[in-house]
Amino acid sequence: MSRLIPLLSVIPLLMIGPGCTARYAPNWTSLDARPLPQWFDEAKVGIFVHWGVFSVPGFGKFSEWFWYWWQSEKRADVFEFMQRNYPKYFKYTDFAPEFRAEFFDPDAWAEIFKASGARYVVFTSKHHEGFTNWPSAVSWNWNSVDVGPHRDLVGELAAAVRKRSLHLGLYHSLYEWYHPLYLLDQASGFKTQHFVASKTLPELVNLVMAYKPDLIWSDGDWDAPDTYWNSTQFLAWLYNDSPVKDVVVTNDRWGKGCYCKHGGYYNCADRYTPGKLPDHKWEKCQSIDTRSWGYRRDMRLSELMDLPSIIKDMAYVVAMGGNYLLNIGPKADGMIAPVFEERLRGLGAWLGINGEAIYASKPWRIQTENSTVQVWYTAKNSTVYAIILGWPSKQVLQLTTPKISGATKVTLLDYPSKPLSWAPVTQTAGLVILLPTMPASPGNAWTLKLEGVA
Amino acid sequence: MSRLIPLLSVIPLLMIGPGCTARYAPNWTSLDARPLPQWFDEAKVGIFVHWGVFSVPGFGKFSEWFWYWWQSEKRADVFEFMQRNYPKYFKYTDFAPEFRAEFFDPDAWAEIFKASGARYVVFTSKHHEGFTNWPSAVSWNWNSVDVGPHRDLVGELAAAVRKRSLHLGLYHSLYEWYHPLYLLDQASGFKTQHFVASKTLPELVNLVMAYKPDLIWSDGDWDAPDTYWNSTQFLAWLYNDSPVKDVVVTNDRWGKGCYCKHGGYYNCADRYTPGKLPDHKWEKCQSIDTRSWGYRRDMRLSELMDLPSIIKDMAYVVAMGGNYLLNIGPKADGMIAPVFEERLRGLGAWLGINGEAIYASKPWRIQTENSTVQVWYTAKNSTVYAIILGWPSKQVLQLTTPKISGATKVTLLDYPSKPLSWAPVTQTAGLVILLPTMPASPGNAWTLKLEGVA
Amino acid sequence: MSRLIPLLSVIPLLMIGPGCTARYAPNWTSLDARPLPQWFDEAKVGIFVHWGVFSVPGFGKFSEWFWYWWQSEKRADVFEFMQRNYPKYFKYTDFAPEFRAEFFDPDAWAEIFKASGARYVVFTSKHHEGFTNWPSAVSWNWNSVDVGPHRDLVGELAAAVRKRSLHLGLYHSLYEWYHPLYLLDQASGFKTQHFVASKTLPELVNLVMAYKPDLIWSDGDWDAPDTYWNSTQFLAWLYNDSPVKDVVVTNDRWGKGCYCKHGGYYNCADRYTPGKLPDHKWEKCQSIDTRSWGYRRDMRLSELMDLPSIIKDMAYVVAMGGNYLLNIGPKADGMIAPVFEERLRGLGAWLGINGEAIYASKPWRIQTENSTVQVWYTAKNSTVYAIILGWPSKQVLQLTTPKISGATKVTLLDYPSKPLSWAPVTQTAGLVILLPTMPASPGNAWTLKLEGVA
Amino acid sequence: MSRLIPLLSVIPLLMIGPGCTARYAPNWTSLDARPLPQWFDEAKVGIFVHWGVFSVPGFGKFSEWFWYWWQSEKRADVFEFMQRNYPKYFKYTDFAPEFRAEFFDPDAWAEIFKASGARYVVFTSKHHEGFTNWPSAVSWNWNSVDVGPHRDLVGELAAAVRKRSLHLGLYHSLYEWYHPLYLLDQASGFKTQHFVASKTLPELVNLVMAYKPDLIWSDGDWDAPDTYWNSTQFLAWLYNDSPVKDVVVTNDRWGKGCYCKHGGYYNCADRYTPGKLPDHKWEKCQSIDTRSWGYRRDMRLSELMDLPSIIKDMAYVVAMGGNYLLNIGPKADGMIAPVFEERLRGLGAWLGINGEAIYASKPWRIQTENSTVQVWYTAKNSTVYAIILGWPSKQVLQLTTPKISGATKVTLLDYPSKPLSWAPVTQTAGLVILLPTMPASPGNAWTLKLEGVA
Repeated sequence: MSRLIPLLSVIPLLMIGPGCTARYAPNWTSLDARPLPQWFDEAKVGIFVHWGVFSVPGFGKFSEWFWYWWQSEKRADVFEFMQRNYPKYFKYTDFAPEFRAEFFDPDAWAEIFKASGARYVVFTSKHHEGFTNWPSAVSWNWNSVDVGPHRDLVGELAAAVRKRSLHLGLYHSLYEWYHPLYLLDQASGFKTQHFVASKTLPELVNLVMAYKPDLIWSDGDWDAPDTYWNSTQFLAWLYNDSPVKDVVVTNDRWGKGCYCKHGGYYNCADRYTPGKLPDHKWEKCQSIDTRSWGYRRDMRLSELMDLPSIIKDMAYVVAMGGNYLLNIGPKADGMIAPVFEERLRGLGAWLGINGEAIYASKPWRIQTENSTVQVWYTAKNSTVYAIILGWPSKQVLQLTTPKISGATKVTLLDYPSKPLSWAPVTQTAGLVILLPTMPASPGNAWTLKLEGVA
Repeated sequence: MSRLIPLLSVIPLLMIGPGCTARYAPNWTSLDARPLPQWFDEAKVGIFVHWGVFSVPGFGKFSEWFWYWWQSEKRADVFEFMQRNYPKYFKYTDFAPEFRAEFFDPDAWAEIFKASGARYVVFTSKHHEGFTNWPSAVSWNWNSVDVGPHRDLVGELAAAVRKRSLHLGLYHSLYEWYHPLYLLDQASGFKTQHFVASKTLPELVNLVMAYKPDLIWSDGDWDAPDTYWNSTQFLAWLYNDSPVKDVVVTNDRWGKGCYCKHGGYYNCADRYTPGKLPDHKWEKCQSIDTRSWGYRRDMRLSELMDLPSIIKDMAYVVAMGGNYLLNIGPKADGMIAPVFEERLRGLGAWLGINGEAIYASKPWRIQTENSTVQVWYTAKNSTVYAIILGWPSKQVLQLTTPKISGATKVTLLDYPSKPLSWAPVTQTAGLVILLPTMPASPGNAWTLKLEGVA
Repeated sequence: MSRLIPLLSVIPLLMIGPGCTARYAPNWTSLDARPLPQWFDEAKVGIFVHWGVFSVPGFGKFSEWFWYWWQSEKRADVFEFMQRNYPKYFKYTDFAPEFRAEFFDPDAWAEIFKASGARYVVFTSKHHEGFTNWPSAVSWNWNSVDVGPHRDLVGELAAAVRKRSLHLGLYHSLYEWYHPLYLLDQASGFKTQHFVASKTLPELVNLVMAYKPDLIWSDGDWDAPDTYWNSTQFLAWLYNDSPVKDVVVTNDRWGKGCYCKHGGYYNCADRYTPGKLPDHKWEKCQSIDTRSWGYRRDMRLSELMDLPSIIKDMAYVVAMGGNYLLNIGPKADGMIAPVFEERLRGLGAWLGINGEAIYASKPWRIQTENSTVQVWYTAKNSTVYAIILGWPSKQVLQLTTPKISGATKVTLLDYPSKPLSWAPVTQTAGLVILLPTMPASPGNAWTLKLEGVA
Repeated sequence: MSRLIPLLSVIPLLMIGPGCTARYAPNWTSLDARPLPQWFDEAKVGIFVHWGVFSVPGFGKFSEWFWYWWQSEKRADVFEFMQRNYPKYFKYTDFAPEFRAEFFDPDAWAEIFKASGARYVVFTSKHHEGFTNWPSAVSWNWNSVDVGPHRDLVGELAAAVRKRSLHLGLYHSLYEWYHPLYLLDQASGFKTQHFVASKTLPELVNLVMAYKPDLIWSDGDWDAPDTYWNSTQFLAWLYNDSPVKDVVVTNDRWGKGCYCKHGGYYNCADRYTPGKLPDHKWEKCQSIDTRSWGYRRDMRLSELMDLPSIIKDMAYVVAMGGNYLLNIGPKADGMIAPVFEERLRGLGAWLGINGEAIYASKPWRIQTENSTVQVWYTAKNSTVYAIILGWPSKQVLQLTTPKISGATKVTLLDYPSKPLSWAPVTQTAGLVILLPTMPASPGNAWTLKLEGVA
């Protein structure tokens, strides 16, 4: 299938199919019934990467929205930044040639991502600014091959990520703030679909055909209903006929009102933090830089998550049945700031010891308790894992939730071959565990593996 | 009619019409039969303006083709220029932000064009590079409002030109060397029409609706047949239903094999120079800079036409029934180089005296003779004009072609109220005219008005 | 002599000398008595070239003063230009890297200068901005080799100019608006001489030793007395001991109050226009662009001198015993704008016919008369030249000043071998000359050669 | 004293003085005898800051030598970097306008430096590139006020550092690779002193007078003898007559052969690492980025020291009687990379607990031992500090060196109020100490305070 044929004919195509097997219909009832491919729940940890023209100014809170803050919100700090540093005539598009990516080494990125213990990587193929990080034929001279890096960033990263057996996810924004055809459709109350027909759908299909992503992380859906975006048609094609139909995972941002309700897994809001166990697979995305997804040249240490915060957050998310998608914003020159590299490698070091409690785990019957220190539970078959956030000062830890048995055995994942002494709290439940000398853990979290408990 | 509705539906629309009056059918037989609106033949003199991203490098022979010389032809001088002056990663698109137009004053341009004596102006709305000098909704971030000048160059110039009662023409290149959809269609042997449907026709219709040009100067047609371009459909719409249907003039570049054969007036090849009177209205375009249509920063005086050459060329063209479209390439900063301004004002000064022989003239029964100096004839009703290129050294001029009569009267347009003495050459034909003291003429050409001749 | 030894020791050196021949003493009485080397008066016509960092903005009235207008005068148009086109932090020094001179071809320049008929060229080695167009060791990183062109502009032009047997003059500004040492001296009321000792004199000596100019065109002297500049010491060295001591010519700008009084020939004020014959050799410098010496990207035709104005001005100057130094400002990219090239070649064409009346001429006993058209007289031995500005409409010219004789002979320099008929006005004086058919002259000036008159 | 008077007269001035008190003579015997001001030895920890034009390319091993690697060494990686990223004509000076410092907040820097526990800051006032980070009157247009930041970086940082009671040190390179006057002197075999007289000494004096530094960190001395640099004259003036004569500290880089021999404290070579206790006060400078002193945009985590390495290095240096000067290279935009900020704050956190063993300490009779883990000893009066690098796996630590007594008391600085149990190894020497639960220490080092030992 030529990469460009869909351009004028993508909608009809989406509805045609062989029909001989059970197929998804382009409606939510049918699509929502699709089982989530298993790899996703088992992966648990992903790396989110925000990179684009916004990485050039690299300034201010949520730097990836720079254009919007400047042009539409006229946010004071962004305005002042532009006035101080750029000539009057300068517009956002003038940043694109400075998105140079001269140091971009996709293998070096992939090596770091692998070392972080993540099992998938989600990369911004195109953010709300509309700049495509691949050579889209319908985004001429506003893509990373024609302008700026002069490279196919999606393609290069995809290859490197796959070489290390990581799953590839592509972030894709449905809307583009300032695309003239989108603005035209918007002005019509989304009655016309010029933008969807000539930009959104051709690009989505192009992305799938060219890069065969395992995950599509949809975004920017909220202004218009899914009927405007033709989301159900696209998903039906994706699930029925695309080359990734068996493996692909998507999220829930497919139109106004869809999130937390339709699609694949749920992202719900950014940095969604449920208070109790959700009944649908979900994912929390969280940026190491708490003030931005895109790179900020002016970030300071106090604004960044430290390793203990990251591990604490991940432990909570996994205990709650979610996946944890940890974000970094690379620099416009293609480097990952060492402080991010350090966080990712720190996470990987922790998962190297404690990953057994994370990957392919399931939520346990109880998610948390807080007797001595805060504990998050996960489970795998009959084994229960208690992730403790902090080391008890007296080397003694009490867990009240697990029911004990004669076969109960407790080990610390740092010393897997050394069972720990413990005593029951009541006859049937709870353990008081005598801990060994504290193993150094820059993440300030350790895992107890409990066997023979219930 | 919304400026964007044509985007997805332009072809069907072109075929729909009220039908109550005689209408042009979308075929050459019908379209070629349309009479040329009268203003064009009367105007005789136009100014051609080549302006675009190519004005930024402004280098080398036919600078407006810079991208092509560099990317496709790999012309040595252009290669060396890029290597010496730009970093390796630099691509043509990176020139666009430097197309600043900071001094662009459309009224100052229009004043100069008016002062040149021209009656119409043809402006590059978009050259083969595809950069639109107006905010085309289907050329996002590759147009003069999004990038570079950040102004609607077509719109601003159109307004200024009209304010001075000049006709507005828009040059439009059908093809775009490197547009990915064009390349796709090309690869299909022009069997697909992705580019035409989503770019060419929407933009042509947009141009007509938004700027209501009196002339469309089509170009870049030669690689594909007119059936690919849907030219006849477009022209039928233009002639039947567009807001300029009664006044608009077009040329003959509407598809491979069309030139000198179909369309409105004929341009035939660039700088077409027929040896005898053509039987179809034609136009010669000619650049003051003999090496380029676009600005060349490195032009030298010897490469430019001087005023006598221009006037000589124009006299020939008008005598041959053509229009003369004289080209300048403004600088990227929006200024017209003074040497061009001087040529245009010089032409205007000459036309101020001699325009009677040019505007609204018709070819005479004989176009030229060369007894004393070279002479080009034009006519208006019963009056004959002899434009002489050079002043006879002995103040005496012989014309052998005109048939004389008792009513024969000869004046020099410089001194319209002073009839000149003359004597017959034979009884019925030819005059020997005694000239007065030579009036200074930087154009080195003068006009004799002959009344009562045949 | 090493080019740098003078740096710390230039002042004492200036006072030491062999002493065996008559020498100039470092005082005006002695220096003013030096006879002007003969070549200068014979040359009559020179080309002045203003080139520097100021050529980059190339904006506004007297663009070569751009820095001063902006920083010190805060001229509104310059302020607005900067605000519109440059970021806030941009300073004048930031223009220097854009002074690229990528097209600078010194031989092409010299060919044009030669073709203009000029006999000398005066080039800005350094203007008030202090940027040296040669690699001055005491102007590190503020010279044309370290920054911008990365070439020795003075050296390259000097070689090319000499190759065509033109005399080389170097313009040199004594003061530099914003040099911190100059400002320090200024603050002391010019009691300290830090700037002169470490910058001015080392550079002047360096220029003389390295490029051996035939002319030093001093400027920027007016804020401080010649005693501050050590001008008389420098000139004494220049006239006594420098390698150009026999040939070098200087002007009169050597300190507050010097101009029109001391030094070599007199420039007096810019564009000095004496009403009667001065009694000291003088030179008028005049820019083709009447609004600027440096290039203006925004110049318009109406602001430029046309060829007749230039020739008229030159005829007046030479008749008055002056030299005519006609200025052009090249573009920052190294090209001479074609309109300037056209003026220079036009001047050369005129001098090709009429140069006999100019080069090596002397003022006549009467400078001008205005019987039929304005006439300027020059003389060479017993021959008198009458330069007429305009052609008499009736082909008859009356001159009342010359005294006639039996040997009186009149020719037009356009037709040197065809003596013209003339008749006396009175018995002893005045001629009525019958002119031939007007020879075309874009300069609108012709020369009558009168022999046997007094 | 005017800041510029020294310019032409600095050397004589250096030799004149009141004479009524004992004064230092300009020779090493006299100068070396000066006692080191006490603050320096007590401070122990300083921050070194390398910032300059080199921060713009920010590339490659020892990025602060970029110019030299490129121009003189023609190092392959640097060459390739320039070829790939910059146009051919680009020279090092062209980087200067991009040294923008737009985010430079001296108070934010000083806050971080203070938080690191350092007691002094040494800032590059001028590195070998010659670019002065203050408005030097003898470095016009090659300083941070005229070009690039357009700010007085030295002045702003000095004020901020002093506000937080940190001592201010100024790094100053004597030589400048490419200064034409330096090259001239070099060519003379350093027989001439043009550069020293007009650049080095005026600037050194200017720095002292304007910013009153507590420390001058001299560098770039090695090509020429101290007699060329006039170092002893300068130091005699500095110690006798300058405004900082009582407080100022200098190092030992004052001319070829001086290092490790003359001057104030000794730096000896970069990253000097003596094997036994030196008998002269010394300082080790060490960069967090092990490959560079200046910022490298392309640095990776593995190339940076982690906190344990830094603390280990510092413990060794202080035990050996040295000061530890830890270096960071800020970004060209004025930000300190978060990874450096993290190291500095980590160091400060460690010093917050363990600083008692560092500040104002003295070397003990023995510097190190390695019975259980590596230990470095320091002392203050009768108290001995044992800094342990690593926590003994069995909570028990043996120290063999200290001689015990009845009054012997051992505490961990983390828990200062809880004396630890210990047992003697032999009757008079050695302790076996029972450690408490390990206090988390990201620096992986702890301090035992030993009282009543010898």
